[in-house]
Order: sequence, then C-alpha cells, then structure tokens
Amino acid sequence: MNKAEMRNLLQRIKSKEIEIEAAMEIFEDLPYKELGFAKIDNHREIRVGYPEVLYCEGKTVEQVRSIIQFMLTQDNNILATRVNEKMYEAIKTFGVEARYNPLGRTITIRKREEQLTDSYIAIVSAGTSDMPVVEEAAETAVILGNRVEKIMDVGVAGIHRLFAQIDLIRGARVVIVVAGMEGALASVIGGLVDKPIIAVPTSVGYGANFGGLSALLSMLNSCASGVSVVNIDNGFGAAYNASIINRL
Amino acid sequence: MNKAEMRNLLQRIKSKEIEIEAAMEIFEDLPYKELGFAKIDNHREIRVGYPEVLYCEGKTVEQVRSIIQFMLTQDNNILATRVNEKMYEAIKTFGVEARYNPLGRTITIRKREEQLTDSYIAIVSAGTSDMPVVEEAAETAVILGNRVEKIMDVGVAGIHRLFAQIDLIRGARVVIVVAGMEGALASVIGGLVDKPIIAVPTSVGYGANFGGLSALLSMLNSCASGVSVVNIDNGFGAAYNASIINRL
Amino acid sequence: MNKAEMRNLLQRIKSKEIEIEAAMEIFEDLPYKELGFAKIDNHREIRVGYPEVLYCEGKTVEQVRSIIQFMLTQDNNILATRVNEKMYEAIKTFGVEARYNPLGRTITIRKREEQLTDSYIAIVSAGTSDMPVVEEAAETAVILGNRVEKIMDVGVAGIHRLFAQIDLIRGARVVIVVAGMEGALASVIGGLVDKPIIAVPTSVGYGANFGGLSALLSMLNSCASGVSVVNIDNGFGAAYNASIINRL
Amino acid sequence: MNKAEMRNLLQRIKSKEIEIEAAMEIFEDLPYKELGFAKIDNHREIRVGYPEVLYCEGKTVEQVRSIIQFMLTQDNNILATRVNEKMYEAIKTFGVEARYNPLGRTITIRKREEQLTDSYIAIVSAGTSDMPVVEEAAETAVILGNRVEKIMDVGVAGIHRLFAQIDLIRGARVVIVVAGMEGALASVIGGLVDKPIIAVPTSVGYGANFGGLSALLSMLNSCASGVSVVNIDNGFGAAYNASIINRL
Amino acid sequence: MNKAEMRNLLQRIKSKEIEIEAAMEIFEDLPYKELGFAKIDNHREIRVGYPEVLYCEGKTVEQVRSIIQFMLTQDNNILATRVNEKMYEAIKTFGVEARYNPLGRTITIRKREEQLTDSYIAIVSAGTSDMPVVEEAAETAVILGNRVEKIMDVGVAGIHRLFAQIDLIRGARVVIVVAGMEGALASVIGGLVDKPIIAVPTSVGYGANFGGLSALLSMLNSCASGVSVVNIDNGFGAAYNASIINRL
Amino acid sequence: MNKAEMRNLLQRIKSKEIEIEAAMEIFEDLPYKELGFAKIDNHREIRVGYPEVLYCEGKTVEQVRSIIQFMLTQDNNILATRVNEKMYEAIKTFGVEARYNPLGRTITIRKREEQLTDSYIAIVSAGTSDMPVVEEAAETAVILGNRVEKIMDVGVAGIHRLFAQIDLIRGARVVIVVAGMEGALASVIGGLVDKPIIAVPTSVGYGANFGGLSALLSMLNSCASGVSVVNIDNGFGAAYNASIINRL
Amino acid sequence: MNKAEMRNLLQRIKSKEIEIEAAMEIFEDLPYKELGFAKIDNHREIRVGYPEVLYCEGKTVEQVRSIIQFMLTQDNNILATRVNEKMYEAIKTFGVEARYNPLGRTITIRKREEQLTDSYIAIVSAGTSDMPVVEEAAETAVILGNRVEKIMDVGVAGIHRLFAQIDLIRGARVVIVVAGMEGALASVIGGLVDKPIIAVPTSVGYGANFGGLSALLSMLNSCASGVSVVNIDNGFGAAYNASIINRL
Amino acid sequence: MNKAEMRNLLQRIKSKEIEIEAAMEIFEDLPYKELGFAKIDNHREIRVGYPEVLYCEGKTVEQVRSIIQFMLTQDNNILATRVNEKMYEAIKTFGVEARYNPLGRTITIRKREEQLTDSYIAIVSAGTSDMPVVEEAAETAVILGNRVEKIMDVGVAGIHRLFAQIDLIRGARVVIVVAGMEGALASVIGGLVDKPIIAVPTSVGYGANFGGLSALLSMLNSCASGVSVVNIDNGFGAAYNASIINRL
Repeated sequence: MNKAEMRNLLQRIKSKEIEIEAAMEIFEDLPYKELGFAKIDNHREIRVGYPEVLYCEGKTVEQVRSIIQFMLTQDNNILATRVNEKMYEAIKTFGVEARYNPLGRTITIRKREEQLTDSYIAIVSAGTSDMPVVEEAAETAVILGNRVEKIMDVGVAGIHRLFAQIDLIRGARVVIVVAGMEGALASVIGGLVDKPIIAVPTSVGYGANFGGLSALLSMLNSCASGVSVVNIDNGFGAAYNASIINRL
Repeated sequence: MNKAEMRNLLQRIKSKEIEIEAAMEIFEDLPYKELGFAKIDNHREIRVGYPEVLYCEGKTVEQVRSIIQFMLTQDNNILATRVNEKMYEAIKTFGVEARYNPLGRTITIRKREEQLTDSYIAIVSAGTSDMPVVEEAAETAVILGNRVEKIMDVGVAGIHRLFAQIDLIRGARVVIVVAGMEGALASVIGGLVDKPIIAVPTSVGYGANFGGLSALLSMLNSCASGVSVVNIDNGFGAAYNASIINRL
Repeated sequence: MNKAEMRNLLQRIKSKEIEIEAAMEIFEDLPYKELGFAKIDNHREIRVGYPEVLYCEGKTVEQVRSIIQFMLTQDNNILATRVNEKMYEAIKTFGVEARYNPLGRTITIRKREEQLTDSYIAIVSAGTSDMPVVEEAAETAVILGNRVEKIMDVGVAGIHRLFAQIDLIRGARVVIVVAGMEGALASVIGGLVDKPIIAVPTSVGYGANFGGLSALLSMLNSCASGVSVVNIDNGFGAAYNASIINRL
Repeated sequence: MNKAEMRNLLQRIKSKEIEIEAAMEIFEDLPYKELGFAKIDNHREIRVGYPEVLYCEGKTVEQVRSIIQFMLTQDNNILATRVNEKMYEAIKTFGVEARYNPLGRTITIRKREEQLTDSYIAIVSAGTSDMPVVEEAAETAVILGNRVEKIMDVGVAGIHRLFAQIDLIRGARVVIVVAGMEGALASVIGGLVDKPIIAVPTSVGYGANFGGLSALLSMLNSCASGVSVVNIDNGFGAAYNASIINRL
Repeated sequence: MNKAEMRNLLQRIKSKEIEIEAAMEIFEDLPYKELGFAKIDNHREIRVGYPEVLYCEGKTVEQVRSIIQFMLTQDNNILATRVNEKMYEAIKTFGVEARYNPLGRTITIRKREEQLTDSYIAIVSAGTSDMPVVEEAAETAVILGNRVEKIMDVGVAGIHRLFAQIDLIRGARVVIVVAGMEGALASVIGGLVDKPIIAVPTSVGYGANFGGLSALLSMLNSCASGVSVVNIDNGFGAAYNASIINRL
Repeated sequence: MNKAEMRNLLQRIKSKEIEIEAAMEIFEDLPYKELGFAKIDNHREIRVGYPEVLYCEGKTVEQVRSIIQFMLTQDNNILATRVNEKMYEAIKTFGVEARYNPLGRTITIRKREEQLTDSYIAIVSAGTSDMPVVEEAAETAVILGNRVEKIMDVGVAGIHRLFAQIDLIRGARVVIVVAGMEGALASVIGGLVDKPIIAVPTSVGYGANFGGLSALLSMLNSCASGVSVVNIDNGFGAAYNASIINRL
Repeated sequence: MNKAEMRNLLQRIKSKEIEIEAAMEIFEDLPYKELGFAKIDNHREIRVGYPEVLYCEGKTVEQVRSIIQFMLTQDNNILATRVNEKMYEAIKTFGVEARYNPLGRTITIRKREEQLTDSYIAIVSAGTSDMPVVEEAAETAVILGNRVEKIMDVGVAGIHRLFAQIDLIRGARVVIVVAGMEGALASVIGGLVDKPIIAVPTSVGYGANFGGLSALLSMLNSCASGVSVVNIDNGFGAAYNASIINRL
Repeated sequence: MNKAEMRNLLQRIKSKEIEIEAAMEIFEDLPYKELGFAKIDNHREIRVGYPEVLYCEGKTVEQVRSIIQFMLTQDNNILATRVNEKMYEAIKTFGVEARYNPLGRTITIRKREEQLTDSYIAIVSAGTSDMPVVEEAAETAVILGNRVEKIMDVGVAGIHRLFAQIDLIRGARVVIVVAGMEGALASVIGGLVDKPIIAVPTSVGYGANFGGLSALLSMLNSCASGVSVVNIDNGFGAAYNASIINRL
C-alpha cells in the first residue's frame, strides 16, 4: 500500500464510503504490507512461475505427504528436494504427474507450463560422482524457468576435457561449478570465464576430504575473482541463486 | 579459428597465396586462441574499464611499489587492496593522484573516468566494526564502475533499523551483506529481498567466533535461498562478484 | 542441621536423653547434610513436583527397564528421554500409564498431578525439522510443571511468520528458541524480546552444518544480548533451565 | 497501537476531528509500532534504568570518543566494554565522572542513581586468572541495577574452597560461573545449586585449551542440568542474561 | 654384551679358543642385543604374567581366529579387546575356557593362574553409559594381575555420591577415571586424591561432545595436577598404564 | 607435433601430396597436441603399460559395469579401485579374467603382460589392520609394472620387527609407508632410509584418531626429511606416485 | 576424624570432660574433615616436602609479587611457573635466594632442603627446541624431591642417538617424553621401555602442527601401550605426575 | 661393515695383526653400523655433497651461533633455514662466506664446490606472495647439488601463464608446486605433467584459509594422480624430497 492508496482509503472513511470495521481489516494487514510481508502476491516463493519448494530431509514420509497434498490445492508448480523412494511412492498416490529424479533426489510437479529463459545456466561438474548434485541443481533451475546446459566430467585432472567445452561454458549467463575432492575446477573456470560463478563443493572424496570441507575451503579461497560459494552438496541453493541472476 | 577459417588457410597454402613461414606463425598461435587464451583483448583483467588489481598482503613495500610503477605505464585504472600506510607513502612518491582509504586499506588510481551504472549495488553491514570490509567492497565496486549505496549498522539485534532501510536495499540490483559474529543478517535479508545476495562473513567478534568461522558457517547454512558466500573479510571478492552481476 | 539443632543434640547426650550410638548415626550423616546433600528433601531431583529423569541414550533396553522399575516404587513423576520404541515396549509391560512421544523420544509417567504455572514458557522453532527437539523440550517443561506455548516454523527466511506471533512470544516468562542451519532465529528474537532466551542449536542441516556446529556457533556469537545456549539438540536441558527460571 | 486505539483514530477521521494528513503521519509509523519497533519507550536498551552499552573492540579511539560524546547528551547511564587505556584517556577529557575498571576493561558513567535489587547475582570464578571476565560481569551487573556477590578462586582442584562458600552461592537468585581450563566448576555448581546457572568459559589456559574451546565444550556438555552457556570471555553477556532473570 | 664380555670374546679368538665362524654368529646378533631387542626374555609383552594382547577392531573374524589359535600354542594368558559376538563364536570352537565380556567387548583366556596384587586399581566412572569402557579397563587390569575396585555412577552432577566413596578411591594405588560429556570428574578427583590418576574420556554424549572431544579436552586441561590422559574410550590403555604403575 | 613436422605437413599440402581434408583432420587435433593433450600416445593414462584406472566409490554398480565394458574394448590393462562385491559380480559376467582383491577392494584385468621393473617398491605397514591400504597399493604398483616387496606389521611399538627388515626396505628404490594411529613409522623409516618415502596415513584407530587425522598430521610434521604424504587411506595414490619415481 | 575418635568425643561430652561449646567447634569442622578437606595436614599441596606452586601466566607482576610474598611467610618450598623476567625482578627485591630458570620460565625458592629420591625420573626430549618444556619439567621434578636425568635431542629422525641412551632411560622409574612436530618419540620409547611414560606434546613446529595438535594427537593414539599424555607444553604437569608415581 | 669385513677383522685379531684394544674400538661402533647408524660415511646428512642442515626456528641466536661454529669445524656445506637477520649478523662474525637469502630466510655456507645435476627440479609457484617458500626450496635444492628452474606467478586464475611455461615444467625430473589460497595449481599441473610432483601448501591467504589449511587439504585431495604433499610452508622438505628423487 503506497501513500496514495493510504490517503485514498482515509478519504473514503472520511466520506463514509467505507465502514470503519471494513477499513480496520485492511489496516490490520498493513504492517506486513509495508514491510513487504503483505506484498504476498509478488513474494518470491509464490509469485507466478516460482514453484513452492519443500526440503524433505529430516521430515517423515507422512509429513511430506501432507504438505504436498496442501500444495496441490494451490496453483503453483512444486519442487521437493532430498526426496527418497518412499516419499515418491506416497506422492504417486495423489494421481498427479510427478517427475521423480532418483539421482538428484527431487520430485517436480508442473501445474503450469513455463516459458524457459533464452539465456542459459551452465552446470559444470568435475566427475561423475558429482552427478547427484548436478541433477538437483538442474531440476531446480528448470522448474524455476531457466534453460540449462550440463557439462559433466571435466575435472582438472584432464584439463583438455574442460577446454573442449569452454565455449559452451562461456556462453552461459551464469555458471554453476560442482566439484568435490579439491574443488580446483571452480578456480580454473573462474580464471577463464567472465560470468558470475556459483561454486558448489560436494562431499565426494574420502579421508582428508572431511565430508566436503576440502572443496569448500578451496572454493572460498579461490584465487580467481568472481566465485561465490554455497553449502556443501547444495545443488538447490546454487540453482536458486543462478536463477535469480539469470532472470535479473 | 573455426573450421572454415582453417580450411581457407590451408587452401591459401595450397594455392600459394601465403608463404609457409607466414602460415606457421598463425598455426603456432592456434592452441592458445582455440583455448581462449589468445582472446586476450577481452580478457577480464585488462578489458576497457576494468582496473588492474593488486593484492598487497604478504608483499613487501618494495614489491608493491615496483608493480604499481609498472601498472602506471598502462592506461588502466588501478586498485590496490590490503595496503598499509607505508605502501601508500611509497606510491605517493610517483606524483599521481592516488586515493588512499585507510579504513578499507585500499588505494585507487584513476587514469580514465568511468560512467557509473544506473543500477546500484547495496552494501549492507551489521555493525560499525564491519566498516573496513564495507569500505574495501565499496572502493572496489566504484572503481569497477558501479553505483553503490551503503547501509551500515543495521544488525539484527535492533531489527527495526534494518526495516527502516529495506526499500533502499530492495532497490538494488545486487546486495552485499557484511556481518561478523553470528552473521544472521544475511539470512534475514535473504528472506526479505528478491535479489542476488553475496554474503561476506567478517572476523568481527571474539571467542567462539574463531576468526570469522561462526559467521562463515552461518551464511553457508542460511535457511534463506539466494545467498552465496565469499571468504571471510573478502570485501573485494564480494564487490567483484556483485559487479559482474550488476553489469550483466 | 543448623547450629541450634547441633547444640540441642549435644545437650541431649550430656543429659543422657540419647544413647551415644544413636547420636553417632546422626553425626555420621552430618557431613552430607552440612554440604547440602542431606538437604535431600528439597534437593532438586526429588523434591515435590520434580520428576525423576532418565537419559536412555547408550543404555540397553534391559538397563532402562530396571531403572524405571525401581523408579516406579517411588512416588515421583518420571521422565525418560532419548527413548526408543523397544524401550517403550518394555515399559508398557509394567501396566502403568506411560505417555510415549515418539517424535520427542520421551516417556512420561505421572504419579501425582501437578498444578501448572500461570506464566508460560514459549518454545519457538525455525522449521518443522526441529520438531523432535521442540517435543523433547515441551514434554520436559510440562512434566516439570510449566505451562507451555509452542510457536513452530517461524524461521527468519519468512520473517513475517515470526512477527505474526511476536506478542505470544513476548508474553512468555522465558523463551526457548530451537533452530538448526544458521540458527539466526535466536538473534532475531533476542533483539525483539526482553526475556531470558535459551537457545537450542539443532543438528538440522547438512554439509557445512557439521552436525549442528554452525547453529551452535551462531547462537554463542549472537549479537543480541540475553541469549544463552545449551548443547546441540538438547531440548531437555533447555526446558530444565527454563523451568528453573520460570519457577523462581 | 491496539485495536481500540486504531478504531478510535478511524472514528476521529470519520468525525473529522483529525485531519487526514495528521492521521497519515500516525499511520505511517504504524508498521513499526505493530511490530514492536515503535514501542521504543520500553525497548530494552533505553528503558529507564538500563544503560546504553558500547562494545569498543575493533573500534578506533576516535569512534569510541564520538559515540560516548553523543551518549552523554542522553539521560542514561553508560557502559562501555572492551575499553583500553587510550579510550579512557579520551573519555576523561569530557570532564564527566567515568569509572574505569582496567582489569575488567570497562567504563561506567552514571547519570542517574539506581536502586539495586534485593536479590543478588553470585559471580563465581575458578581462578585468579579469570578475574578480567569476573570484573566485566560484575561491572555490567551493577550498572544494570543488580546486587552482586563475587566468590573467586574456588576451582575444583581444591573443592573445599567451594564448599566453604556454597551457602553464599545458594543464596543467589542467579549464578554466573566463570572458568577456564576444563571449566569443571560449572558442572559441580550445577549439581549443588538449584538456581539458573550461566556459565562463561574463559580463554585462560594454554595448549589444548585452544583459546577457551575446552571450557566451552565442557560447559555445553555439562552433565548437570540447569547450566546454559555464553561466548568465551563474555562476562558482559552473562551478566546481561543474569540481570534479565534477576529482575523478572 | 658389555665391554668385559666383548674383550673376553676377542681374547678367545686371539687365543684360538673359539672359531671365527662361531664368533661371527655371536657378533651378528650383537646389534639387537645391545639395543635391548634380544633382551626378549623380559620384554613386556611376553614376560611371566603378562598376557598376549590382541586388538580386534578392523580385523576379520578369520584373522582373529587364526591369531588366537596361534596364541593358544603359547603358554601365556590371552586378552582380546574390541571383540564382537561373531569373534567369540569363532573362538569358542577351540574348546578352551574363554571368558567373554559383551559389555566390555573383551575375551580373556587364562592358561596360568596369577596372584593378584595387594594394592588395587580404582576404576571410577561418571555414569552408567560409561560402563563399556569400565569393563574393558577392569578386564584388562585383572588379566594383568591387578586387584580392581569399580566405583560407578559417581558423576559430579550428584557429587555426594562421589564423596560417599572417596575413601575407597583414596585407598587405591592408581586411579582410573572414566567419564564422558564434560569429563569434570577427573578434575574433581584430581583435587581430592593424592595418587596418579589416569583419565579416560569417553564418547558418551551428543552434539558438542563431538565423539568424546569435549571430555578429552577437559581432561587435558585439568586444573588439578596429577591427571594424565589416554585416548577416547581407551579402557585398555588406561588399565595397562595403571598396571605398570601398580606393579612398580 | 614439433615445428619441423608442422613445416613438413604444410609443404606436403603445398606440393599436393596430401589432401586438404586429410590435413584438416590432423590440424584439428593440433591444439590439444601443442598443449600436450594430443601427445596422447605417451599421455600417462593410456601409454603402453599404464592401465586405465576407475575409481568406483560413489558410482553405481551399473555405472561401473558400463565403464568397464567400454574399457574392455580398448587394449589396455584395467585397474578398478574401491570396488565392492556386487561390482565384481557384474564384471565377472563379461567373461574376462578379472582378478578381485576383496581386502584391497581392487579389480585388475590384464590384456597385455608387462615386464616388471628390476628395482622394487617397498610397501611397509605398521599393523595388520592397515592391510586393505597395503593391498590397494600393491595391486596398483604391480599393474603399473613395478616389482613390489611387502613388509607388514612392523609398527614402532615393537621396533625390533622393523630392524629385522631394514635391509629389505633400504634396498627399495621408493618406499611406501602405511600407518594409522599415530603414524610414527613414517618418521622412523625416514630417519633410517635414504630413499623417497611416500607416507599413507590410514584411518585405523579410534577416538582422537579422528578418522586418520592423527596419522595425517604426524606424517606432515615428520621430523625426518624425505617424507611426503598422500590422502588418508589412499593406497592407490601412493603407489601411483611411487611408480612414477621408480620408472624415472 | 574416624569413628573411634568421634565416639570418644561424645563420651567426653556425656562424662562432661568437655564443654558443649568446645565440642561444637570441633564438630563444625567435621564435614570438611570427613570429606577429606580437613585432612589438611597431609593434603597434597602443603604436606611436608611439597612446594607451593604458582602458575603465573595471565597474572600481573603485582599479583605474582603479592602471592609470593605471602608464600614466603610459610615454611614451604616455592615453585612459580610461566614466570617472565619482570616477575623475577619483582621477586628478587624480597632478598631471598630465588633460582630463576629463564628457559624453563620457572622460579624456585628453597626454604627446606629435601632429600632427593634414589630412583630417578628420565626426561627425554626430541629436539633442542623442546628445551623450555624440559627445563620446566626438570625444575618441577627436582623441587618435588626427585632425582632427574635429562636425555635431550634424541628424536627419531636419528634414532641411533636414542639407542645410545636407552639404558639410561630404562633405568628410570618413570619416563617423561617431550616432543613436538609428530611426537613419534613417545611411541618409540613406549615400545622399548617397560615403565610408565608420560608424554608431553610441545608446540614446536609450524604449519599443520597447529600449535602442538599434531604431537598431541600422535601421543594420544600411540600404538605403544603404557603412554599417557598431558597438555601441550605442560612440563609442570608431566613432572608432577611423574613425581607422584616415583614417590609411590 | 659387511660380513667379509668382519671376518677379515677377526682374522687379523687371530693373526695378531691388530691389537685387541684397537679392535674393540671398531667393534664398539658396530651396533650402530649394523643398523645403519654406523654407516655414517654414507648417512644422508653427512655423506659427500650433502650439507649439514640446521632448523633455526625456536632456537636462540646464541644456540644457532654455537651450532654453526661447530659445523664450521667439519668439512661439509651448511644450510640453515628459518634464519632471521640477527642470526645472520652473529654468523657473519665468523668471517666465512655465508650467503644470506632474506626472503627465503636461509643461510648457505659452501666449503666444497658441488657439481650440479644435469636434470633439474622445477619449482613452480602460484603467486608472488609464495616467494619465501620458493626461495627456501630453491636454496635447499641448490646446496643439495641440484639444478633448479623457477617458474613463478603462474596461478590458475590466469591459466595461460601456466601454459606458456608448460614445456619448461615438463622438462624437469621432479616438480615442486608451491601454492597458497586454494592450492589448485598442484592439481592442474598434476593433470598435465607426467613427473613426480611434490606439493607445498603455503599459508598465503586469509580468513577461511586457516593458516594454509585450505591449500593443504586441496593438495591432499588432488584429483590428479602423482601429487604428494609436505607440510605447510615447508620449502625445505619439498626440496629435500625432490633432491632424493632427482639424484636416484
């Protein structure tokens, strides 16, 4: 509610076009609106084209089922992440067309068809073991309305594989780099590509990898400018970020 | 060099339009060009409008002085970060107009005037102790050609201060959030603003802060989507990232 | 035993009202009493209204069963935490009315009905995945005789949900804040509420969450005053603390 | 502004007792007020009797001087923490009566005399090296209006010293336990005293102490119920917490 | 071989009392003997009364079976630690009297009866969850020939339980303290008992316990002198140490 | 392709000895070749005698099966590491002679017989629990064409076992030292042997071992010169390194 | 006070040999005595021959001076650790014979001459940089009345130096091993010597040494039995432990 | 001393060519020799061409001066590492030609001229801030008799700089890679070069670099085979390793 609208409303009270109780209901919502909380129509999670997102880790099958059931009453697309087989089974019973990506552990349900962006997000990964994160990122980016190009298995141990794909990477508007072990791929791409790079460390590796810590620290300390980092294995977060940038 | 150009060159050899030695010079450059290294004219560090950047930590005054001296022979703007007083003294002797920001520990030297962007980068910080990082980020963003708005001291302990500035933050194209201690500001802004957010944890704090680790982990684990993170106290990196996004 | 009682006892020996051996038994207990151990009647674990508490993690079903069996011979209420299904099955065989909260992993057995406090403890949580800790805290607080209000799923990513409940939170005498991931909720509430806040980091999250470390460090480094912290996932401890404060 | 006040205001518009522009000014402040931000009169930092607090670490002498100068224009008591000698010198020039506690690194300036509470906060410490934290806590507690009893050097290595003071500790309404090294004192007191205990780990120690980490972890893992923890060396935070509880 | 023996041997060569080849055999063994390796008769693992010890973690059932089979051909007592049920089944097939302690995860096989020491080792533990470590330590101490007194469940949360047993603890020649969580028991006993104390941190606990790290750091930082520490959950090592001291 | 070859090729075009399309195929490979990527004939992974290596951790049985199937179409030997039983079952169906080492978790398939080196790699290990790493290293070294000597169970707790084998260790061209727990063996051998030593920390141990961290830090801090370190449990990496050195 | 004494005292009251008020004074001390606190005559810190110990780190020169001044009024020997030059200057003004060991950072003041033990404590160190810890341990052991043998610079990088001294080490009743870097010396001696070994990790080293962490973890994970560990650089603690054992 | 020599010596005793006392002196050295310790002539530190090495960190100027003074009486070259200005001043007073490298913090004194190897060690570094480590490595490698090529400032942020030097790197027999921050250079070179690579993480960086930890973990987790790692900033160790390999 902007100033003009507020003045108009007060005028209508003064001129008795509107009852005080009716005006009060409007005003009671005001705080939220002024702070943006009542700008609920264009709030990010629910504005047109944005899916409702459900993070399923640590939730029971029953909880997931109930939340999805409620979401289905809405008109939005749905993205569920960190889904397991059993959750998928439970959702299938609703009879909607739910796309389950077992590698990426996602379920997507489309209630409206989106026009994909012209510009694309490149998702580049170091090794085949990083695929689950790549898949989570790709599913997220697509349901958020972005065109996606996946460039997999181009880790720095065989850097010629990366160079063979460099033009495709450079053509993107945003680049997501997914890598485990020492995570060097983010720095190398950071030095070659003049686009925002969102690095996702993965827990791929063992020993002094410490569950993804080595790749995480590598990426945070990247000598290449233009690299920012999300949580370990957080393919969803990387894609969400990339989507905001891609759709600016 | 694409296939057509290559075929054409070989044809010219066959038809003797070009000497073998001249052709050899072209072929010898081929690898770099194909890999993009010879696309040196539009490489990020040296393309028009981008400054040359010098990270001075761990370098001697003499080393800094020499590198700046060389840079001055070029036509680019210059940004030196993590500068100390003595380095500034050394650079002043060159007689150029060097702007020294002692809080941000930066020196900027402008050899060309840049048109700033219309859209702006908001740099939001939690407390006054975060100012050195804010200043480094602001100096970097400006020399990279961006309009900047600084919103300082709006940490979550007094969240009304943040709400008073929320429109200014929402108006930005990219938001940099600078916070130490528990770094909660990044999550709160992440929940309120629908723009890419680059979070900079700072080493402000003590005890279980562990030199910025607490803010770093907070930001990486942000429950709000749309937040990516750079290294602790890395105001430069945040601004560099923000600039790439702002200028997309 | 205070000075007057001791003098009286010695007088009774002198006047031969009491046998030396009988007096010796009393004196042998003296050290404990003087140190407060013999103030056993009002010692916290067993004073009226306080339940006996059994932490079951790392104990066998048989051990848990035996201890509960003994406790049942006493007149106190009983709280068992970190209980699993099998332990509950074992306890059910006693034929007492045992309330099992599978989410909170608690069993409570009431042998006396308590009057709940007028003032209440607010238990506020960031996400639905924090529910097990909320439940453990709530069960603990209630069996300790406190009125409880649960305010769930008000994490800072959608801060308007928190504001919609702020009056209920402010009305509490003590506030327990349960949050995983970056744990920012504790700081935000700490800045809004003028009551003692006991923060419980949870292990909800993944990657750089490091089993709850990120929320723990966040809460310890809270920029808001008035926040103190208990161990990760320690809903019992938070409620125990809150109860002591609520019943001051 | 509650519902009654809002209805009354709208009535006054309707009855033309108040001009629309005047009403608009009131409504524009509404969001803050509804959220509590405009309940600024009883906001914790500035309500009667509460001092304004300035954390000086990482601030320059000049910054500290300016902020204190501004605070002096207000009518509140002032507490500055993590102060150094030079800051004190700068503040002395204002000619106000500033109490400097060099061990606790605090400055307190009293503009109004407070009535201390009847109930007291006990501040118990393990060794003489913990004194700086004790002093910071004590100065904070007193300027916040609390009566304080200090019980120092009663670490568990000579546990009889603790027992000699146990009645004084038990008489408190809240107990602050300050300990470095292994921080065992918090657990021992937690087992003996039926009051809220706020534990402050200190960085006293060396080697595997890791800057206070050992005491911090000890206190978080206390086997005694009723212990909550603040940041390492955070005497201020402990006292602030204790004060809220003591003044409930 | 001392100097006199060596001179004597050389004399015998010179006087031809011994053949050169025979002398050479003696000299070839010399290095080992001089280094003590040939003092194999009184080497610790195999001297009278000391059992052969087998650490079974990370070994296959088959490997454990083979090694025990070989050990049984010797005349020594046998101690196997970190044994599981299946290993015990495999060993039972040998038809020897093997004592299996499932809580302590040990197997002991006695081939010679030992006279236990008069002085005893006290094994003191904080809680019932520490029992596996207590049992491992007790089995080890006994098979090494020591008299043992177990004092369990005397953690500092109810310190009167400890005081009730303090004379039994003080009567020991060496004290083993087994505690998880914050491990405060080691410091408290260290302040009360004038005997060598070997502290065993256990992994009992959760959250910021970090698998025993909190107790480990506590014990290493003990403010009480006379406490030394072994690895987390290392009941065997503590008992081995204690035995060496007890048998000095 | 060196300069002479390139000039020669261009001459052949000019003299029409070679068709342009044929020349183009050669030139299209050029970039890689100039950067060494096209020196594919002697590139490490595929030059004569070097096996193709497949790291199977984090891959599905199906993925492993497909990659091996492809590799079998090539003429190289094959090494698969971190293999499990199911993967072996899948590979056996191809009907090739695949050697499965269940302890070392490797599969090797020989398509060409290699001449082993004269000089040998010594693989020395501290305890029998380190055997899986020893086996992985040994399988790797042999398939890479090296003669190997294994010296197992010579940890420093019984240092005479090490000295008994010291000549065999000294005779090696490179020494791999495999040790868990405190990893002291690397330093001791480093002080005794004048050859390159590659140390492999293992995750053998428990408690403060932290998954191999203790051995890793030990080896990195070795007081003996000549020791370099690979990742925890990385037998393959150690053997690969050793092989490069052995075949220099 | 044992049972017999207590009965006797009560008899004397009954028979009126002692006044009730006099008896009450005795009984008031009873708790401490029964708990051992009143067994103050043979309490460890102050029994004959044991020095009073003052840890000076984190204390001001003035505090140290005052405490020593008080201690000098007693009849005990004095040991001050972690002393600096200025503290020594302050103590010298008392005119007593104070022995200052600047390397070990200790001051010892002898008020009574002690008979040293026949058996000795061996203090073995890896390198010359460990000398400060060796000196602290040696000063402590001697003032506690023990004969000491120092064997320095026998680290495992040149293990022959250790073997040359092995008989001297074996002759000790207790062995203190002081080592930084990888701390392997403790394990090697643990494998060679059949005496209690107290290992002191030192902070000597750099990089992945992490302030002594590598040596600490090594020693805790020692594959040799019979090794227990004290805090990093804690020469005092090691010697105190060794002294208790040596004087058993 | 081999078998033949020993037999010969015994024969000479028998034939009285050598006196018993003279033989005894030889035999007294025997144990060490058989274990290799008496193979002192070709022992690594002192064999022809190898310098004596002194690590000066943590040593006093006086200690360094004394040890160098002793070394100067020997005929070997000398290398002192981690030297400071004052130590150099002290050594200069001896009047020998001592080469001081202030950046590398080394002093080298040549008493014999060495023939350098034909093959060379390549020392490759990521940035100019890594120069101190490069210099330490280079000084070490040269005094150990190796030819050295330094390739500096070729970090992956501008990977074309690396490719421009790749042939020089490939021409080496061993490659030392020195890098801080994320240490990606080691992996990239590991993928391009078929030679043993010794990676040296440096402490260059800040924040989440944690004193070199990020580069260390990166290098340990390198996805490229053929990389082994030494301690953070350990230029000496890398060069020592490289020299052993280069001189095989």
